[in-house]
Amino acid sequence: MTEKGIIVLGAGRSSSVLIDFLLDHAEPSGWRVTVGDLDIKMAEERIHGHARGQAISFDIHREEDKAQIKNFDLVISMVPAAFHIHVAKICAQEGVNMLTASYLNDDIKALEDQFKQNGVGLIMELGLDPGIDHMSAMKVLDKIKASGAKLKTFETFTGGLLAPSKDDNPWKYKFTWNPRNVVLAGQGYVKFLQEGRYKYIPYQKLFRRTEVIHIPEHGYFEGYANRDSLKYLDAYKLRGIETLYRGTLRRTGYCKAWDVFVQLGATDDTYQMQNVAELTHRQFINSFLSFNPNDSVELKLAHYLGLEIDGEEMHKLKWLGLFEEELVGLKEGTPAQVLEHILKKKWTIRPDEKDMIVMWHKFEYYEGKELKRLQSYMAVEGEDSVKTGMSKTVGLPLAVTAKLILEGKLQPKGVFIPTEKFIYEPVLEALEPYGVNFTECGME
Amino acid sequence: MTEKGIIVLGAGRSSSVLIDFLLDHAEPSGWRVTVGDLDIKMAEERIHGHARGQAISFDIHREEDKAQIKNFDLVISMVPAAFHIHVAKICAQEGVNMLTASYLNDDIKALEDQFKQNGVGLIMELGLDPGIDHMSAMKVLDKIKASGAKLKTFETFTGGLLAPSKDDNPWKYKFTWNPRNVVLAGQGYVKFLQEGRYKYIPYQKLFRRTEVIHIPEHGYFEGYANRDSLKYLDAYKLRGIETLYRGTLRRTGYCKAWDVFVQLGATDDTYQMQNVAELTHRQFINSFLSFNPNDSVELKLAHYLGLEIDGEEMHKLKWLGLFEEELVGLKEGTPAQVLEHILKKKWTIRPDEKDMIVMWHKFEYYEGKELKRLQSYMAVEGEDSVKTGMSKTVGLPLAVTAKLILEGKLQPKGVFIPTEKFIYEPVLEALEPYGVNFTECGME
Repeated sequence: MTEKGIIVLGAGRSSSVLIDFLLDHAEPSGWRVTVGDLDIKMAEERIHGHARGQAISFDIHREEDKAQIKNFDLVISMVPAAFHIHVAKICAQEGVNMLTASYLNDDIKALEDQFKQNGVGLIMELGLDPGIDHMSAMKVLDKIKASGAKLKTFETFTGGLLAPSKDDNPWKYKFTWNPRNVVLAGQGYVKFLQEGRYKYIPYQKLFRRTEVIHIPEHGYFEGYANRDSLKYLDAYKLRGIETLYRGTLRRTGYCKAWDVFVQLGATDDTYQMQNVAELTHRQFINSFLSFNPNDSVELKLAHYLGLEIDGEEMHKLKWLGLFEEELVGLKEGTPAQVLEHILKKKWTIRPDEKDMIVMWHKFEYYEGKELKRLQSYMAVEGEDSVKTGMSKTVGLPLAVTAKLILEGKLQPKGVFIPTEKFIYEPVLEALEPYGVNFTECGME
Repeated sequence: MTEKGIIVLGAGRSSSVLIDFLLDHAEPSGWRVTVGDLDIKMAEERIHGHARGQAISFDIHREEDKAQIKNFDLVISMVPAAFHIHVAKICAQEGVNMLTASYLNDDIKALEDQFKQNGVGLIMELGLDPGIDHMSAMKVLDKIKASGAKLKTFETFTGGLLAPSKDDNPWKYKFTWNPRNVVLAGQGYVKFLQEGRYKYIPYQKLFRRTEVIHIPEHGYFEGYANRDSLKYLDAYKLRGIETLYRGTLRRTGYCKAWDVFVQLGATDDTYQMQNVAELTHRQFINSFLSFNPNDSVELKLAHYLGLEIDGEEMHKLKWLGLFEEELVGLKEGTPAQVLEHILKKKWTIRPDEKDMIVMWHKFEYYEGKELKRLQSYMAVEGEDSVKTGMSKTVGLPLAVTAKLILEGKLQPKGVFIPTEKFIYEPVLEALEPYGVNFTECGME
């Protein structure tokens, strides 16, 4: 057995599940696993003294570091998204296979011919979303197409959530990934197709135009639309479809309460607030309400946004401590930054809490004249604060694909995303033993 | 009497009142009036064969054109805002007085010393808004300060409106200036001070948080907040004030109806709509509503936004033809561009209609323990489609200031905006004969 060399570039938190997988398979598979990071300490931490592991200092802007890439059989790039192009150029030139979880762009796509000529491949968008979403959706879409049926509807939802617990948290939500992205979620425009018509939702209505979704075994969720669904017309070869909708999942009741922040303007990230150092939670809310010395902040808010004073939304806001005269604790910030800071006080996940990734697809298609409905779903819970559901679902697709390539079972030649059957079929199969698997069933 | 030379750079529509004024005074005052524009035909049109006028081709990026500036006693720059700096550098160096209606910025402010050393001045923000607003507000603010009273409140509103008419237009509004700016109005953030508290309003609430304003002789208006009022804390030396609010005036009922477009997302300028070439007015509205084959677009809209189906807002939308199956008539566009195009069909001002500029200031101050209220207001109607209220109020401050400078009655040395008494006092006085004058009176 020839020894194979793998290098993982970037030793951030999201690399941990990936690197553990590689190290676990290093001995039986005969791999050397190198982890490179600007901060060699981080890389050493990921390797934690494993006999087949090696930590190195790696700077993508240093020529002698880049020159090392050609000595490996496979590169997994976890560097910031903008730097993948530098890695990809070397891999294309030197004939090294490469994987990433980031979005493919035109600059990288332009390297296609060089990858082909050198007989190797680059697979991008090989994480959760993008990644598992592509693979699990295309598996069913290709099957429907192959059966000769005509596709009518494709809806797909993903959520990074809190695993069910006995906690009294009325949001049934905490930050399980990048808090800033959660606060800014939905800003920008939304486009989708509904019954053959192009539809648009602005940010100020996004969290009110939700869909209730029931997922077998897991109960009810709500979904709100996610950016430009129309991109998937081409990516998934869906031209002619009547309904195409991508969304984000939350537990029921979340969106109506989150909409309070949207309507107030509390998620705005475009300007600095005044006197943040002296601001309390209560004053933060009050700064978005009219002056009225006779009414409480609670009453003004409920009246302004048409909320019941003792209703579910007000309860959620109170639970967050938003009406307390407690200092925010920042010196300066935009409304979004102040809100994020306040939310972190209650929405930081505890060691005894686990995250949960949920993905759900819905398909409608005509078999002859008959309309059929199919759903496909996955739920992955975290195991601990390192092996979170998020890091498993981002890291494992990269990890099992690396194994398939090094074993010669997958031989990509060119630049790909995993919408291709020759990729998603073995990768989805390899993911199953790790709890990343989809249940397909009919719908009422 | 020495002959004086004035050059106006930029012969756009907004220069017409200004240039007519200069030509009217050219003979008795002994002025030569030169108008320079990239398009010499435009310049010739403005001069219309006047014996003391001269049209030249002028390109701010051509050295030989710029070299001519030093031959004049005064430059009035009406070039696009970004190019004033090029003109200002020459004026500072060559010792030529300069006027513009555009906003002062730090790059231009940096020329202060050079203007001073050469014994000449640059006055910027010398139009309507900014311009007349600065002068008329500072006149009262300085008077209150000089009396020893303590200022509590300053609110100021300006509107470019339609003059009252017998027309059945339920909006009592048409485009009288740049339509695009009207469609995008209010996007971005709003900051102001209310009773000593910093307040913020997001775009999605802006047109619902309006103030009703009664102006003697002119009736009722509504005002919505205008961007960052806090900038005026320093510009008007108002630190310590309790309420500071700048707003835009509309006729009553406008804002609630305009808010329909805001809530729909129809003013979004950040993305291209699909299939615009085939889009009708009705489909445009429908594209922001959920699919529901059983309800009409009217019913869906009314239900979505909580409008009465036979109410005033629906009437305004119907009057605009928004529910007609009429092609928009564009090939592509953002929602904001499509909306602007539809609105222009009804909101283009006819030759028999006149525009009207309204400005209103409110002051509250303590004389000892007693709270006093004062208002100051101006209304200027257009005369015809060239001498509009807008071009008069933008052009006349520049024009009369030019006259004051050439007559030696105003001798600015440095870089200014007209918040200074030595500028606003003679300029406001000189504007009065032209119908640009303020009425001051108490308030209930």
